[in-house]
Amino acid sequence: MPAYPGACGLITLLTDFGTRDEYVACLKGVILGLNPEAHLIDLTHEIPPQDIQAGAFILAGAAPYFPAGTIHLAVVDPGVGTGRRALAARGRGQFWVGPDNGLFHLIFAGQGDFEIVSLENPAFFLPQVSATFRGRDIFAPVAAHLSLGVALAQLGPALCDPVRLPWPEAAVTAAALRGEIIHVDRFGNLVSNVAADVFHAWLKGGDFQLQVGHLTLTRLRRTYGEAAAGEMLALIGSHGYLEIACAGGSAAARLQAGPGLCLEIRRKG
Amino acid sequence: MPAYPGACGLITLLTDFGTRDEYVACLKGVILGLNPEAHLIDLTHEIPPQDIQAGAFILAGAAPYFPAGTIHLAVVDPGVGTGRRALAARGRGQFWVGPDNGLFHLIFAGQGDFEIVSLENPAFFLPQVSATFRGRDIFAPVAAHLSLGVALAQLGPALCDPVRLPWPEAAVTAAALRGEIIHVDRFGNLVSNVAADVFHAWLKGGDFQLQVGHLTLTRLRRTYGEAAAGEMLALIGSHGYLEIACAGGSAAARLQAGPGLCLEIRRKG
Amino acid sequence: MPAYPGACGLITLLTDFGTRDEYVACLKGVILGLNPEAHLIDLTHEIPPQDIQAGAFILAGAAPYFPAGTIHLAVVDPGVGTGRRALAARGRGQFWVGPDNGLFHLIFAGQGDFEIVSLENPAFFLPQVSATFRGRDIFAPVAAHLSLGVALAQLGPALCDPVRLPWPEAAVTAAALRGEIIHVDRFGNLVSNVAADVFHAWLKGGDFQLQVGHLTLTRLRRTYGEAAAGEMLALIGSHGYLEIACAGGSAAARLQAGPGLCLEIRRKG
Repeated sequence: MPAYPGACGLITLLTDFGTRDEYVACLKGVILGLNPEAHLIDLTHEIPPQDIQAGAFILAGAAPYFPAGTIHLAVVDPGVGTGRRALAARGRGQFWVGPDNGLFHLIFAGQGDFEIVSLENPAFFLPQVSATFRGRDIFAPVAAHLSLGVALAQLGPALCDPVRLPWPEAAVTAAALRGEIIHVDRFGNLVSNVAADVFHAWLKGGDFQLQVGHLTLTRLRRTYGEAAAGEMLALIGSHGYLEIACAGGSAAARLQAGPGLCLEIRRKG
Repeated sequence: MPAYPGACGLITLLTDFGTRDEYVACLKGVILGLNPEAHLIDLTHEIPPQDIQAGAFILAGAAPYFPAGTIHLAVVDPGVGTGRRALAARGRGQFWVGPDNGLFHLIFAGQGDFEIVSLENPAFFLPQVSATFRGRDIFAPVAAHLSLGVALAQLGPALCDPVRLPWPEAAVTAAALRGEIIHVDRFGNLVSNVAADVFHAWLKGGDFQLQVGHLTLTRLRRTYGEAAAGEMLALIGSHGYLEIACAGGSAAARLQAGPGLCLEIRRKG
Repeated sequence: MPAYPGACGLITLLTDFGTRDEYVACLKGVILGLNPEAHLIDLTHEIPPQDIQAGAFILAGAAPYFPAGTIHLAVVDPGVGTGRRALAARGRGQFWVGPDNGLFHLIFAGQGDFEIVSLENPAFFLPQVSATFRGRDIFAPVAAHLSLGVALAQLGPALCDPVRLPWPEAAVTAAALRGEIIHVDRFGNLVSNVAADVFHAWLKGGDFQLQVGHLTLTRLRRTYGEAAAGEMLALIGSHGYLEIACAGGSAAARLQAGPGLCLEIRRKG
């Protein structure tokens, strides 16, 4: 037996359901009906509707801060009720339940081995499975059963080829480092896909010039408060990626920009 | 003694308070002060301000997915501080606490017997009851006391005539089935008041023509993903009602419509 | 030993992080990794970005409804990563963790003694502290350690001069009582800084005339429902302050006003 942590009773929920409707509550009711001791924590329910890439990004940002054995239930599922598979997995010391549509791309693309199964055993679903709400009818009960100690192998056969997203990767050449904005947070900070370690390894400590839209930046700040109010700045944000911010304001509003905006870094002098 | 489940420590909360202010937190603080073991789950706090019908619809959609013994605390209360009564009830295997203004209309209109009392015993309220925040001062402590095992009869005298809403019911004739949109969800799906069983019983399997605004639909889809992106479709949604949707988009935005929009179904050919 | 309650496992969270991003979830994951038994309750995460005064107001409104021993974790932190101190405190029977920037102004300004320390002992932080997310790296683990029984004195040296806000106080003269709107709630109610006891002590029961913008009011209502639909009214709201409301509507929308709007009360006749 591997020294692998079992699932704990902690289940996180990430969806694009919003919180106006009763959809999230239905997931929780189903889980608590099966495991009254489950401890439910919302990651977020405000993933833009059907935006799998955004869901993948937020999930990958939050999961490392949760303890071993945590079960992450994630549902952003534009293909609900069509042929797309449903999965449960374990790896990185945690458990993962949701649609097989790339939502776990960044998790599975990371380090470590994963055991992944296709959810095909209706014994662990609600008795009636609707065509439109697999979160409630399949994913929630499966997460609850995992929290009760059900083994992955009981849920279905191995799934060896999980769907991957066409993830926008930063492009590294000798002359330039090119990336793009992949997330705008609540404060209007523009988070890029240029990871801190990629940036530092490429730059090797010299001066640089960062071009993003009409803006040129030449310094890496340590924190927002180092710049004067209203000043645009670049820093390594809490996600571990290069981020464009506006001290005391919203960089997204100032640049009128969001995901997809390109940035280019060149060595200077 | 009937074999009726006692209240469990699970208390759901539904309000129109939003989550910007501290109002919801006050309810929770009051409950946890009385019963530190209570397990609190938000149904939603984004019922449009003072929209009792919307609250009734969301509550009825979520409650069946919660376990027996759950206490549902619901506060949408435009008449706070005036003469309207406050109630607690048990029925359908669960408990219900809130204003007597129709918020529980769909619950009480369903099957099963209900025991309903008028909340008149101040021993189970906060010591000081304000005129404007009965949720915090009356409903929250009553829900907490129920979760601790207090019997309904201790809370006040029987309430035999709970307020009913003028609920918009679908109209069934031999020639047509007429309903209206009663809810728009986060995805812009337009949920009607035509229940799946009413629809199928009326249609008896033939072809049909559904008219909603300028849109005519003639097929019932099984799920959103069956239609091409951008296509409008009709299906039985997860609420169990006929629903108008737009594959990969918002039907509400496409039809510029919301609650109150009429729809008519006729047999074809 | 003082008969002071120890910290209980109940931790509230108030931030300006919003709920779209994973920031709040990261706080919770960190806490639950250290204390799996912690009971986490959201006060709100919708404090306007970097609005310390709004955070202070909401915190002071919610905290009295939580039980003794509750730990309040509050993060509205425009100065993150610059020189501002971090603090933990106990007083009023509860515990307080967050930046030393005035967020606890109304708490510390109230009655009772406080023991306040500056968070300087990295043994109670995450192993790696980022420059931009002290909530996750310092405040969350400190709150978790407090919930496990760590004493304040272990966290750092005494902090004797916590930062105070330039709080807008109501001005009382023999001729008039002048205040301003300091909060607009979800319903559009305009909450002023004129406390109920200040108002009543000044008025001594006579008639009055309240001027707010172009509106003149001469009665104090007991509750919203006492006025006709659409009527503007004044009452003592659930916060305990004089409040301007619109029966069945939004006073903020009607007056096109928000925080900062002045009001003046004079005796009549």
